[in-house]
Amino acid sequence: MAIALDTFFLKPDATGSLQAQVQELVAEGILSGRFKQGEKLPSSRKLAQHLGVSRITVTLAFTELVANDYLSSRGRSGYFVSDSAPVPPAYTPRPTRGPVKDWGQAIARDFTGGDTPRRPQNWREYQYTFIYGQADPSLFDHTNWRQCALRALGARDFAALANDQYDNDDPLLVEYIARHSLPRRGVIARPEEILITMGAQNALWLTAQVLLSSGRKATVEDPTYYTLRDQLMRTGCDLNMVPIDQDGLPPDRISANTDVIFVTPSHHSPTTVNMPHGRRQALLERAEQIDAVVVEDDYEFEMSFLRAPAPALKSLDSEGRVIYVGSFSKSLFPGLRLGYLVGPEPFIRQARALRASVLRHPPGHIQRTVAYFLSLGHYDAQIRRIAQVLHDRRTELDAAIATNGLTIAGGGLYGGSALWMQAPEQVDMAQVAADLLPKSVLIEPGAPFFAPENRRHNFYRIGYSSIESNRIGPGMALLAEVLNQRAQQ
Amino acid sequence: MAIALDTFFLKPDATGSLQAQVQELVAEGILSGRFKQGEKLPSSRKLAQHLGVSRITVTLAFTELVANDYLSSRGRSGYFVSDSAPVPPAYTPRPTRGPVKDWGQAIARDFTGGDTPRRPQNWREYQYTFIYGQADPSLFDHTNWRQCALRALGARDFAALANDQYDNDDPLLVEYIARHSLPRRGVIARPEEILITMGAQNALWLTAQVLLSSGRKATVEDPTYYTLRDQLMRTGCDLNMVPIDQDGLPPDRISANTDVIFVTPSHHSPTTVNMPHGRRQALLERAEQIDAVVVEDDYEFEMSFLRAPAPALKSLDSEGRVIYVGSFSKSLFPGLRLGYLVGPEPFIRQARALRASVLRHPPGHIQRTVAYFLSLGHYDAQIRRIAQVLHDRRTELDAAIATNGLTIAGGGLYGGSALWMQAPEQVDMAQVAADLLPKSVLIEPGAPFFAPENRRHNFYRIGYSSIESNRIGPGMALLAEVLNQRAQQ
Repeated sequence: MAIALDTFFLKPDATGSLQAQVQELVAEGILSGRFKQGEKLPSSRKLAQHLGVSRITVTLAFTELVANDYLSSRGRSGYFVSDSAPVPPAYTPRPTRGPVKDWGQAIARDFTGGDTPRRPQNWREYQYTFIYGQADPSLFDHTNWRQCALRALGARDFAALANDQYDNDDPLLVEYIARHSLPRRGVIARPEEILITMGAQNALWLTAQVLLSSGRKATVEDPTYYTLRDQLMRTGCDLNMVPIDQDGLPPDRISANTDVIFVTPSHHSPTTVNMPHGRRQALLERAEQIDAVVVEDDYEFEMSFLRAPAPALKSLDSEGRVIYVGSFSKSLFPGLRLGYLVGPEPFIRQARALRASVLRHPPGHIQRTVAYFLSLGHYDAQIRRIAQVLHDRRTELDAAIATNGLTIAGGGLYGGSALWMQAPEQVDMAQVAADLLPKSVLIEPGAPFFAPENRRHNFYRIGYSSIESNRIGPGMALLAEVLNQRAQQ
Repeated sequence: MAIALDTFFLKPDATGSLQAQVQELVAEGILSGRFKQGEKLPSSRKLAQHLGVSRITVTLAFTELVANDYLSSRGRSGYFVSDSAPVPPAYTPRPTRGPVKDWGQAIARDFTGGDTPRRPQNWREYQYTFIYGQADPSLFDHTNWRQCALRALGARDFAALANDQYDNDDPLLVEYIARHSLPRRGVIARPEEILITMGAQNALWLTAQVLLSSGRKATVEDPTYYTLRDQLMRTGCDLNMVPIDQDGLPPDRISANTDVIFVTPSHHSPTTVNMPHGRRQALLERAEQIDAVVVEDDYEFEMSFLRAPAPALKSLDSEGRVIYVGSFSKSLFPGLRLGYLVGPEPFIRQARALRASVLRHPPGHIQRTVAYFLSLGHYDAQIRRIAQVLHDRRTELDAAIATNGLTIAGGGLYGGSALWMQAPEQVDMAQVAADLLPKSVLIEPGAPFFAPENRRHNFYRIGYSSIESNRIGPGMALLAEVLNQRAQQ
């Protein structure tokens, strides 16, 4: 690759002769790793013209750099970075001067911290990956996805791909969601009541921003998805974390001045509890009584391989007080970052305006690719395939749990892709997880899901969406061994 | 297409016989447009099993629907939505009951309003589209983009495409930006100082959230990009809008208690003014003197076809007080939604944490596709081609302006893709724009760019990135005609 002419600038405050300055420009590019061995330099004529110096200045600089083995000359082909030039393995520019600016003072709001746990970046290299929410390449329909992506990249779809859509979504995708996805959950919605988001997390964030501020009160399940709790805390609202029971969130524990209730009725995160029909009715009645909004995160309903899922809470909503959050991240792949919000028009208008201000719209190409993948039936076929494989893995996992005498705390009536597990009271699962790392086993300690003042350390989550069946048994045996050691300490 | 079995639910509160309920389910699906003519219904056996009713109930319901011409029976093939069924042209479900919930009260923060103007959705159907910031399909390198997208969809890249990356970016893309894009602007940055964003607008939004809150003070150019002004106002900060002069933002007008200065030094938006070197030095000195952060939006630097662009303001920043915003939206296409932030690590850490909370990360597939498009040299080739075409159009436009006696207020020293134009004082360009719509001419009135208390109505912007050369002359003639009529009123 040739080094671009327009990356060369003389520094306005440089000292030394022009020849020395040109030499330093090139040497600096090499020493920092910006130029690589074998890359071609601009011709001395073009570089001289670009920098506004004489050609002989550049030629002398190049000659000097050849003598020092930074460059090599290949006659008429020009100058190249020498194969023995001191190029570092990565681009590591020297900081010109450290930041003098005091950034601690300049930052008005702190967004770091929070409870979101970190996983090893190289998790795919581990043997026993009991983690949650990642895609399994062996289950993904690469061929048809590529076909759909190619079609969405075609000239006929250029406007959908390339245009700035302002605050609009792809009408094909919205129509599919309205006519096919939502009816499966018993939900009837018009296109104006649907907003495409950058995944379910983005949908929850938009909802929290529109409905909550420092004067408002929100209720959330405890335990809950830690990122949602972080999002809600950052709105400055008064956050009430209500412990769930065997039927999910108890409506009578929701205080009367609550404005917004966040709930996962069909498949509680992380315990997998399903809220029965009677409790759902009671929850809606409680919301009506105190005039609260209910936000339903209906994640992973597609993975119902044990029995057909119950309709969404939103399907029982005759008053337009339920906001529904759906996602394609779990069922396609999380890197896609695509989900949707369903709610009454006044709410969707606000969420749309906020989304437009923050990022305008999710990329058009991705919306159109998903629309094709859905409407050609590939999505349904993939869901069926994934559900079958998850079912097999679940059978394997149940057997391994029984063999190793481990305890399931929440199993998922309908299926799902993870189990919620309980260790003896005295065991800290964060320690067990740390012990398991060198044995190439990844599990998820449960503590971050609990409210900070009510943190329990003997729970953990076992995901089975990214581990092959034949690894489940050996992995769970390793887990049981370490867990039992810790329990006896 | 077959209608999915799992979109059928009996309503828990339904009245009437089971047969009537099944009939109503199907009729409602047809009347709302959810089922389309010719679509196949589930078999009576499967539907009966799914709903938990007897098969004869479903068969009787289907028979009744055939009699009413909602369905047609094709013998052993089953039942289909009849070709003469009363299917509406679009999916228009009847609202079950209007929203009872008072949403005016439920919404904690209003994100609607603001100054962002709306364009006709069907703008591509207009003849003379002098609009700004949209992509031109005739200039886009479809073939190589598709190649890069396909490669990024390959099995080798599955992890980059599909994984949840938590808060990380594609290392290939970040390295390219560090080694090639930024050096063209004279900017040296390490990967830890770079964050990928959902376009430049998202980069500016993240920056405003991290650096501003109700106690802080920001300065912005007047006129300015209206969406940025809306974003800044929504942070609750004290916003100082400083009129620019012929050299851009005057540093001595920046008040001493300013925390953050937003500026477009290389190509002022919308007037195209370039800030000379001396003014840039003075701006940095002023920032140092009052210890303010400078945010540089370096949009559209690639479109410099008249002369080589000056290095970015960031290249002069020895104190780490300048935050740099770059974008691929203008040079590739805006629907891509991809840009980047460059700044000191403490700032990037905050912006990354906020981005992770709001949306996790930009879709992996898009990052990887752009990384390939850049590193294979297709991007540079496309930029050269676009710049050449913009140059031709600009020549055409300059001629049309001279012919029609119109006035350029800002022309862009280096090139660009729009001119900032001035009409006689008494002309309201919003009226002119409205008059031009029925003549199939689209222009952008300038008023929204100005501070609300200092709004000027006789300016407008003429974009030439989405109009072919041969339409520029006729379009400008139509504009001049209407403008002159308005001037004489």
